[in-house]
Amino acid sequence: MKRGQVPFTRSEAGLIRLISGWLAGQDRDRRLIRGIGDDCATVRLRGGRLLLTSDAFIEGVHFRRDWMKGWPAGWKALAANVSDVCAAGGAPGAALVSLELPPAFPVGWLKDFYAGLLACARKYRIVIAGGNIARGTKVAVHIALAGEAPEHLIGRAGARPGDLLAVTGSLGGSLAGLLCLKKGLRGTVARDAINRHFLPLPDPGVGRALAGFATAMVDVSDGLVHEASLLAAASGVRIAIVPGAVPVHPAAWLLAPVFRKDPAELALSSGEEYELLATIPQRRFHKAARALSLRGFALTPIGEVRRGKGVELVGGGHITARGFDHFNK
Amino acid sequence: MKRGQVPFTRSEAGLIRLISGWLAGQDRDRRLIRGIGDDCATVRLRGGRLLLTSDAFIEGVHFRRDWMKGWPAGWKALAANVSDVCAAGGAPGAALVSLELPPAFPVGWLKDFYAGLLACARKYRIVIAGGNIARGTKVAVHIALAGEAPEHLIGRAGARPGDLLAVTGSLGGSLAGLLCLKKGLRGTVARDAINRHFLPLPDPGVGRALAGFATAMVDVSDGLVHEASLLAAASGVRIAIVPGAVPVHPAAWLLAPVFRKDPAELALSSGEEYELLATIPQRRFHKAARALSLRGFALTPIGEVRRGKGVELVGGGHITARGFDHFNK
Repeated sequence: MKRGQVPFTRSEAGLIRLISGWLAGQDRDRRLIRGIGDDCATVRLRGGRLLLTSDAFIEGVHFRRDWMKGWPAGWKALAANVSDVCAAGGAPGAALVSLELPPAFPVGWLKDFYAGLLACARKYRIVIAGGNIARGTKVAVHIALAGEAPEHLIGRAGARPGDLLAVTGSLGGSLAGLLCLKKGLRGTVARDAINRHFLPLPDPGVGRALAGFATAMVDVSDGLVHEASLLAAASGVRIAIVPGAVPVHPAAWLLAPVFRKDPAELALSSGEEYELLATIPQRRFHKAARALSLRGFALTPIGEVRRGKGVELVGGGHITARGFDHFNK
Repeated sequence: MKRGQVPFTRSEAGLIRLISGWLAGQDRDRRLIRGIGDDCATVRLRGGRLLLTSDAFIEGVHFRRDWMKGWPAGWKALAANVSDVCAAGGAPGAALVSLELPPAFPVGWLKDFYAGLLACARKYRIVIAGGNIARGTKVAVHIALAGEAPEHLIGRAGARPGDLLAVTGSLGGSLAGLLCLKKGLRGTVARDAINRHFLPLPDPGVGRALAGFATAMVDVSDGLVHEASLLAAASGVRIAIVPGAVPVHPAAWLLAPVFRKDPAELALSSGEEYELLATIPQRRFHKAARALSLRGFALTPIGEVRRGKGVELVGGGHITARGFDHFNK
């Protein structure tokens, strides 16, 4: 693929590759410990090693205001960034909130948004240091989060053939919640799923613990198969997933028939899950699982790392479960 | 004004006041040295003191793609953040770039954008650490910049009655450039003005030098009168500006008759200037001016700090020169 000729809106990953190429000259800068390609960047500033990450939360793309009140929107916009810091095994620190708001906008929604944002900030000991406000045509929230990097950096690269692939918690609940919103479903189970979609609860302690055992780690923000393929590409390995082994969120199990979907299909393609996907040497897996269970978290082996490239669903399965790509619909 | 009843889109400043109120509970957090209200926030992270700032650069609000190529857009989006760090007397360090892009978008513009961004990053020794890409309806660039805080913090609060008000360089060129673009003017002078509008050149060395003398400092991103009024409010003082003393950019002088405007009016209301406005004790002014002239920068006294509140244009003058407010047109 020749640069400049790529119709880049075809794929988010292709676009990120282009940008990485344009910025490659920076690699010699000693302050840049890790640049583009992981959930967080790592830089050296004022002598310390910082994690930096940013995420967008855009009306009409990431949420709809008629579905989502301000409070969960504020929570989720920040929690998505916290999840990136968790995937880097670090601790969140300070955030900047850059807002686009339409000219005629209800202050009530914004007040709720800041209440949710602040609740999330309190839970994760983040200070909302400042930000920016600009006029836009819709609500868009761009949050940048600075955090403290761990001793040993972990990212997408590092998985080795023979490692187990494991995921924390369970998957599919967020997509089930989104489908409930789309179909206007109510009731206890639907509410569980919607809560899962609205209120992610990443756990920096889990990220830190897992980082001590894993060879590579990402958060499941854009779907399991999608994230596994990024991890495989960055590590130069092939990742085999056993679809039946993927832990399915209880609400996704119960709701799958309603949506005429296979529970495993929901679990494989659900994005915005903010669980962690890690590759772990086989002999260290049990220690890792024990460390997580002490924090009340499950760690489930769902496949393994092999030689080669790409993602393989063991036993066939639909490889349509692709996750979310901003430019490839 | 009762909170929750304010139709907030009336004024950007009112909106920022509301948000400050919602976040006031954070003030006890020792990591938050300075929060909302200055060009940069200051936080303590990993033992060091960091400056954090973010700025948005939105198509249709801050720029038009038919006027502005990718290169100057990339330069200006980052330089606006550098200017905030200059106003805090600090040194820029690492940036995150969060992009919204429409689905069908020319890769050429984006490549130019990154070339301009990177040129600006190189000039100011900034590493572009990473960022985010999301689908949007127009181009929006939200940049977060982390920098190193100076020993002595400086911001909007701190001006004292008796201080001189001074500005670096000259003003009006950026607005003149914008008017040239609107009217389709060409030629050498128009190009000078447009360059001034497109390619701001904040100088961290000037910021650092001035911070050593000033009692308060801001950058002129939203117009001189507007910034002076923020400084007056934060410091609890009245600021008197002598319109005739404000240094006018040569291109603004030459073009003012074309736009049927007074040169001083252009200089007072022009935003996106990225010069520094500072209050300096009278007895230290000459030392400050000398320090800046050694760096090739002019420092011009344009008024003084008085008891009271608000901004006064000495000798009357139009106080219509208000600068830019995102929600008050």
